Amino acid sequence: MSSSPESSNAERDFVRAHLDDLHADLDAWLRIPSISADPAHAPHVAASAAWLADALRRDGFPTVEIWPTPGAPAVFAEWPSADADAPVALVYGHHDVQPVDPPELWDHPPFEPTVVEGPDGPELHARGAIDDKGNVAFHLLGMRAHLAATGRDTPAVTVKLLIEGEEESGSPHFAGLLREKRDRLDCDVVVVSDTGMAAPDLPSAVTSMRGLADAEITLRGPAVDLHSGSFGGAVPNPLHAMAQLLARLHDDQGRVTLPGFYDKVRPLSDRERGLMARVPFDEREWLAGPAASRAATGEAGFTTQERIGARPTAEVNGMWGGYQGPGHKTIIPAEAHAKLTFRLVADQRPEDVADQVRAWVEANLPEGVRADVHAPPGGVAPCASDLDSPWMEALLRAIAQAWNSSPDDVLFMKEGGSGPEADLVDQLGAPLLFLGAGLPTDRIHSPNERVLLSMLHRGAEAAAHLWRELAAMQRG
Amino acid sequence: MSSSPESSNAERDFVRAHLDDLHADLDAWLRIPSISADPAHAPHVAASAAWLADALRRDGFPTVEIWPTPGAPAVFAEWPSADADAPVALVYGHHDVQPVDPPELWDHPPFEPTVVEGPDGPELHARGAIDDKGNVAFHLLGMRAHLAATGRDTPAVTVKLLIEGEEESGSPHFAGLLREKRDRLDCDVVVVSDTGMAAPDLPSAVTSMRGLADAEITLRGPAVDLHSGSFGGAVPNPLHAMAQLLARLHDDQGRVTLPGFYDKVRPLSDRERGLMARVPFDEREWLAGPAASRAATGEAGFTTQERIGARPTAEVNGMWGGYQGPGHKTIIPAEAHAKLTFRLVADQRPEDVADQVRAWVEANLPEGVRADVHAPPGGVAPCASDLDSPWMEALLRAIAQAWNSSPDDVLFMKEGGSGPEADLVDQLGAPLLFLGAGLPTDRIHSPNERVLLSMLHRGAEAAAHLWRELAAMQRG
Repeated sequence: MSSSPESSNAERDFVRAHLDDLHADLDAWLRIPSISADPAHAPHVAASAAWLADALRRDGFPTVEIWPTPGAPAVFAEWPSADADAPVALVYGHHDVQPVDPPELWDHPPFEPTVVEGPDGPELHARGAIDDKGNVAFHLLGMRAHLAATGRDTPAVTVKLLIEGEEESGSPHFAGLLREKRDRLDCDVVVVSDTGMAAPDLPSAVTSMRGLADAEITLRGPAVDLHSGSFGGAVPNPLHAMAQLLARLHDDQGRVTLPGFYDKVRPLSDRERGLMARVPFDEREWLAGPAASRAATGEAGFTTQERIGARPTAEVNGMWGGYQGPGHKTIIPAEAHAKLTFRLVADQRPEDVADQVRAWVEANLPEGVRADVHAPPGGVAPCASDLDSPWMEALLRAIAQAWNSSPDDVLFMKEGGSGPEADLVDQLGAPLLFLGAGLPTDRIHSPNERVLLSMLHRGAEAAAHLWRELAAMQRG
Repeated sequence: MSSSPESSNAERDFVRAHLDDLHADLDAWLRIPSISADPAHAPHVAASAAWLADALRRDGFPTVEIWPTPGAPAVFAEWPSADADAPVALVYGHHDVQPVDPPELWDHPPFEPTVVEGPDGPELHARGAIDDKGNVAFHLLGMRAHLAATGRDTPAVTVKLLIEGEEESGSPHFAGLLREKRDRLDCDVVVVSDTGMAAPDLPSAVTSMRGLADAEITLRGPAVDLHSGSFGGAVPNPLHAMAQLLARLHDDQGRVTLPGFYDKVRPLSDRERGLMARVPFDEREWLAGPAASRAATGEAGFTTQERIGARPTAEVNGMWGGYQGPGHKTIIPAEAHAKLTFRLVADQRPEDVADQVRAWVEANLPEGVRADVHAPPGGVAPCASDLDSPWMEALLRAIAQAWNSSPDDVLFMKEGGSGPEADLVDQLGAPLLFLGAGLPTDRIHSPNERVLLSMLHRGAEAAAHLWRELAAMQRG
């Protein structure tokens, strides 16, 4: 990758001159413990929405509304462009945060933002520092930089923001909100700001997210817990049956054995694999660092990056049955349980997975054991950007300017996680772009979550460039 | 099986004339909730010991002592025979009971003994009705019947009783007590009264009990719970590893795969198999009734009766890891756990099992997963009666008289459970006999535990006959 010496541009100059504003905003917002998963924190989630609405009004957004849902409120804002033909961009993000458990593993209190000097420069440590308050906050400064740098009173594109309050709880009311407010959300492109880049010096664009489906399996053996002395060795033990079932979830090539699971999986093209391979990845560092694991494993024929970003997976997230207390209890338990989630890629559909799980369980059940498969409707569809669209070209130019690079050097990344982005595509019918300032080392969802401040600064600048580039694209 | 019409004998006549005493004793004793597993019930376990000691003194035992242990107290009693050469018999039983959970499944309060008319006559419902207060209580009336029927002031054999208070908690201090009181417990034969018979009209003698060893396995994958979106499909999941491990606990013939597990197993002789086959067994009834299961399964080449009585087994009693709450949590957990117990038969040794488990886990561990096997020292050795000893002949004659049958018609049964009986053999070096009045349908350890009163009446009579028969055997 080539990179030219740090240069100057009007957006950057404005951002650099106003970093204190960004830092002050984040410091205030991060002090609000907007944990959506915990009902006790509902007032804080509401306070977080109110803080954001105030900040957007302060910065000049003419329309700012708090949208209630049956759960936590979302914030909507709109700043129309004065240009009649200007495209409409909708920024998606969220203002709720993950729980902080276990609190004792935090070096600093999670809701007292603390600047720590790190190997790549100053870091801000707090729950939500990057996921997702940091990613939303840089848009505040980005919009001001865009207006100042272009000398405009209104942005070059109409900018809408939809910042939800339940993303860390699975966005249970998000699709409903999109349906309800469909007209207000009309847009030409969606800019998702809830992801990140490969490394501080590797400008990159996420191009897809995996989908998600889940299932809970209950196996029932004897009608009651039995004494293992009187019955052991002669009747089916549902824990044995569960172990045998789950042991067959993957074949010896690491492939998921659900019937039909791969039928709709779009094969990885050589171009996609080539693009993924451009992202530097040190597996030993990854194992020793974020993965905290002793070995890499997975589907044969694919790299670790492909396994976590581009291939569908099945994971057992929880498993239980029988006695878990101290000492031993000599029972054959009546029931065994397991919770599974599946990550999906284009063109898999989450609604297909429930039937696949049921067929798979049925085919692998020993005699005398009954199964109950609970697969809630819904799930999350996989979603992706079009690599060759003019929208993507505008994004790459914006990122390249902020990172002092060239569009051809911006890397493409596939995000292994899942979010409500597919709902946006479904409901709004607009293409997706991803612009986020996170890093794989930011410990999102874990103790000591942080953001690298220089990434936020570049994020603000990239946002400012993006609004200009999207307008230019339209005219070009 | 032949059976002659109900006849009369002196022991039976005395028992029949004093059933109210037995019933009153049991009613009083069963009201004491002597649950040894629950520290809150420690005063009740002590009260239970005191009640038994008082009853033994009331019935004339010249020596009655409460023996404290670091846990719950045992009761010791001794009634020496005036005959110089009389053999010494030691009765083993226990006065503690199982917990009653879940209380809502009891038709009557577990500590308010209630007589219920059943298909085989009156039943007494209460926790401990048979396990083991019923089995101990019949010895009180049995001794009185023995003395009355033989017209003696002292029993024809010296009778000792050792009734412990921690059997339902794994008898943690029993071996220590035996060592401490070794001299007081000297005996020629041990009579274990903590088992039962095949059916009300099928007089039978237990001839062996299985041993027990336990192990807890912890598998560790990533150092912390990981996000399944970012890492799923690429690092070892300890729940998958646990499933694969436990799926290999048995081979496709239902044999336990621990290396060396069967090395010391004494093959079942044709005679033993023939004796077991004499015990009527309706598998469909057993499945529909006590086993509450939809199928029989187990080691190929053995009957269900052999599997639960005469063959060693491995059961997973508990298994857990990851998320067990509502909804889903998309993690790859750091740890997975399983608790296993093994039933052992002669000449397996519980102390060999820990190393076998460790070797087996080591051989079946995927790359990147570490295992910790915790196998507490101790365990329970299997134990057995000698089918052809004069002691056994005396027992068969006693049972035959009480059940109005002939010694040749008494069935031999193998008990699949495990208890501290092996400690008695080890420490006292005396042969074991089993005399108990339980039935497979008595729901021991479960709600609605009961005893068939007619079985207790016959048990009292059999005990009375046994003391006479053991003395006659010595003289014969």
